[in-house]
Amino acid sequence: MAPSVGITPALMALGTTSDHASVVAITVFVTLLSACIVIGHLLEETRWMNESITALLIGLATGGLILLSTKGKSSRILVFSEDIFFIYLLPPIIFNAGFQVKKKQFFRNFMTIMLFGAIGTLISFTIISIGAIVFFNKMNIDNLDVTDFLAIGAIFAATDSVCTLQVLNQDETPLLYSLVFGEGVVNDATSVVLFNAIQKFDLVHMDVQHGLQFLGSFLYLFITSTFLGAAAGLLSAYIIKTLYFGRHSTDREVSLMILMAYLSYMLAELLDLSGILTVFFCGIVMSHYTWHNVTESSRVTTKHTFATLSFIAEIAIFLYVGMDALDIEKWRSVSDSLGKSIGLSAVLLGLILVGRAAFVFPLSFLSNLMKKSRNERISFKQQVIIWWAGLMRGAVSMALAYSKFAVSGHTQLRGNAFMITSTITVVLFSTMVFGLLTKPLTTLLLPPGMKRQDSISSDPGSPKSFFLPLLREKEGSEIEPGAQSVPRPPSGFRMLLTTPAHTVHHYWRRFDDAFMRPIFGGRGFVPFVPGSPTERSVHPW
Amino acid sequence: MAPSVGITPALMALGTTSDHASVVAITVFVTLLSACIVIGHLLEETRWMNESITALLIGLATGGLILLSTKGKSSRILVFSEDIFFIYLLPPIIFNAGFQVKKKQFFRNFMTIMLFGAIGTLISFTIISIGAIVFFNKMNIDNLDVTDFLAIGAIFAATDSVCTLQVLNQDETPLLYSLVFGEGVVNDATSVVLFNAIQKFDLVHMDVQHGLQFLGSFLYLFITSTFLGAAAGLLSAYIIKTLYFGRHSTDREVSLMILMAYLSYMLAELLDLSGILTVFFCGIVMSHYTWHNVTESSRVTTKHTFATLSFIAEIAIFLYVGMDALDIEKWRSVSDSLGKSIGLSAVLLGLILVGRAAFVFPLSFLSNLMKKSRNERISFKQQVIIWWAGLMRGAVSMALAYSKFAVSGHTQLRGNAFMITSTITVVLFSTMVFGLLTKPLTTLLLPPGMKRQDSISSDPGSPKSFFLPLLREKEGSEIEPGAQSVPRPPSGFRMLLTTPAHTVHHYWRRFDDAFMRPIFGGRGFVPFVPGSPTERSVHPW
Repeated sequence: MAPSVGITPALMALGTTSDHASVVAITVFVTLLSACIVIGHLLEETRWMNESITALLIGLATGGLILLSTKGKSSRILVFSEDIFFIYLLPPIIFNAGFQVKKKQFFRNFMTIMLFGAIGTLISFTIISIGAIVFFNKMNIDNLDVTDFLAIGAIFAATDSVCTLQVLNQDETPLLYSLVFGEGVVNDATSVVLFNAIQKFDLVHMDVQHGLQFLGSFLYLFITSTFLGAAAGLLSAYIIKTLYFGRHSTDREVSLMILMAYLSYMLAELLDLSGILTVFFCGIVMSHYTWHNVTESSRVTTKHTFATLSFIAEIAIFLYVGMDALDIEKWRSVSDSLGKSIGLSAVLLGLILVGRAAFVFPLSFLSNLMKKSRNERISFKQQVIIWWAGLMRGAVSMALAYSKFAVSGHTQLRGNAFMITSTITVVLFSTMVFGLLTKPLTTLLLPPGMKRQDSISSDPGSPKSFFLPLLREKEGSEIEPGAQSVPRPPSGFRMLLTTPAHTVHHYWRRFDDAFMRPIFGGRGFVPFVPGSPTERSVHPW
Repeated sequence: MAPSVGITPALMALGTTSDHASVVAITVFVTLLSACIVIGHLLEETRWMNESITALLIGLATGGLILLSTKGKSSRILVFSEDIFFIYLLPPIIFNAGFQVKKKQFFRNFMTIMLFGAIGTLISFTIISIGAIVFFNKMNIDNLDVTDFLAIGAIFAATDSVCTLQVLNQDETPLLYSLVFGEGVVNDATSVVLFNAIQKFDLVHMDVQHGLQFLGSFLYLFITSTFLGAAAGLLSAYIIKTLYFGRHSTDREVSLMILMAYLSYMLAELLDLSGILTVFFCGIVMSHYTWHNVTESSRVTTKHTFATLSFIAEIAIFLYVGMDALDIEKWRSVSDSLGKSIGLSAVLLGLILVGRAAFVFPLSFLSNLMKKSRNERISFKQQVIIWWAGLMRGAVSMALAYSKFAVSGHTQLRGNAFMITSTITVVLFSTMVFGLLTKPLTTLLLPPGMKRQDSISSDPGSPKSFFLPLLREKEGSEIEPGAQSVPRPPSGFRMLLTTPAHTVHHYWRRFDDAFMRPIFGGRGFVPFVPGSPTERSVHPW
């Protein structure tokens, strides 16, 4: 666990130059990160741009500059490493998404999300794999066997949750956001199972027994990952509620929350589960229980710290991908057949488009059949946006492609080199073209007047506001910050019972109030201490 | 810049075990960090304990367990790396110290701090070096030449700022805290110059010319490091004030502050300056200007985020040192002469005690001569505490010793092995024994009634409270949160002029109000927007 970066004042003073390069790299990287934030802020008014694309472009420009200054030798100051990505950059992003997600919106659409995330990913995976076999053989790409094609299917079926967070707005389009983002989280679990399956099972000659085994391992993975995340969240809530009551210490509370969230992710990875699923549910549970047990300062701090860490990690990923894209070594081995590489990328992009369309529209139809209320159905225009917003492929695809086709970061075989350059092309193209067009497309299909139907936000100017009600229906007892330690009046429950979809929620609330909150805390269940920081609760949630 | 830690869900799923160990190590480490926080909190009531010592003990216990479970093969799950220490763990601690330091207390004692940090470190270094030459030759330690002895002087003259932060309380004993901690920061600059000097100059045959060169390079280092830190802080203040005004975004503000602070540290390291000095002054400038330009949420968030990061880093360092201390490899090569190793450590501890006494008492006398007011003089009891509180040697000494005596982490020569084990012994002993005794000693020499004389805090129960006045004298205009955008009444200045020591401060305030604050913002100089988050400023500073 000793990174090869290295510098001590002493070593520096002694003039050791071996670590000098690392220091230069970190310095340049941090400078570029700062530049991305400032430039991204300046471009905020432009509806076409966002921080991701700014970071990607700045990364590309920097790579180009380094390429010129080293006379074509290298474009990197940092090598894209899937380790850094999966260990340091991804966890804060997914945790923050769980922490800030609108829980009711998410759980109300739970079945649809599962349908999209599990069945949808499988459909997409199948179409891309078969398509790759058909087209790649026609294009004479060598060195690839069936396992490789299946891996290609899994790599390009992996949607990029980070991109989704950037292009869709939780307040403006909560339904679309929860569907596309939720799908992305479940998609990760499916991808892990798929990767396992590709190695263990003979997917080409799939039979019923193998199918059941596959289903079983998916369910096992999903349930254990969720359980682990929830357990970590509940443990943090219990510790903070029990030990810290009466003598709060903001630094300790925030530290514990950060450490236990990260621990849940690492534990999941250690147990071969889906860390993304785990840390996502840990975030949900922490926002439901733990967050209400801490001081007001801790609440403000955690809310913004998690968002900030996630923000920095997102920019870092795009900067990283942008800088690595121009790396000359990968391109050199395919430079004699650039046309073929472009053709390959075009085929893959086409397969992604078709593969996603093949499940979004049929599964939306299926999902609409289950919904009784017309309001809850997914309109055709919304389906188009769901289809489009999930087309981006990002750092997850990059990381999977690297771990599959670039052992130790080098591309020995020509077929592998082709796959790496195609992945980079697909990621850059889909992020920039599909990503850039998502905002205008949303505006076109769901103009502000329309959007308000879908939206629950009355104030689109305040991003991720804590004051937003969480459901379209009136839930007075839920929003009012005054009703802190009083049990909710039963009239609130009656209202929830008007539609059957809320019955599950009603029983959950009852269970939550009767058993969970007295043990783990949560809004209204942390005993009120006069003069304690919880008294002046400015940010009800 | 690719750490050897590594895991991807895909790789994990494929059953690759090479990265498994890293995941285990990180998981165990994060678990232990959480345990330290919970146990440290439970032991808070005990006046003998603090989180550092808890972390050190837990680290030792874990090392022991691993040693038993691997049957004496290894005690480490993580190797102590000076890179991780200097690149990731030290910057947040020192930055936070600068950010939360009581600026007036610090600058009022500036001359004394410089005296202690520069001259004091040189005296200590000289005594330890000469003592080592005398005693080590008597003890027949081989393989050490004059450069090594000088390095030993520099290693053990390096006080541990992190320990100081733990054992002294800024609110209870602000004078002592600012003296000992400030000394520690300047001490770092001196150490870097010393390390340079040991290589470049023939310190044994020092003449006037070399002495002047040495002085020149110290002054250059001190001034450029300070300037760089201040410049980074001012730049962040200017960017946030100019670009973000009117449309604040907490996440971006916090990100920019974190990134620019870290950038200042890395730039300093890149330019062979003292990163510690730079990031310390960057923290001071950011708390004076930048902090007042951001939203209230950002203010709460940054205050607690920096404290939390610093808190986690501190615990990680002690856990790290504790776990590494039992590493069997280092002890094996000196196991046949354990007595000699213990003797060596005892000699070094003695030299540290004498070396520190040799400058604290004479320099305090010198400093007292300069002060006209009797209240500002350092009493003998306070001198004893200053002497005692700076005796701890910690991670800085460890890191310097490793970079000097353990190339690539191994101890080839016996003399080097002795130096590593002695350093560990000195660090453990000084932290545990000297560290544990500091709290009782302070209580003994300065009982609560006495302490309040020294203290400016009227509420010792609230740690690092923002509501504390910064000077003993009344400065009504400074404390009141109401007087936001109004220039201070001149009567406040008149009061400051009653003692000559405040004249410099007066001119600085005038310059600050007339030139700096209008450009860079700061309290009362960020234009007031009705309804903006700055309106309800709950935390005046």
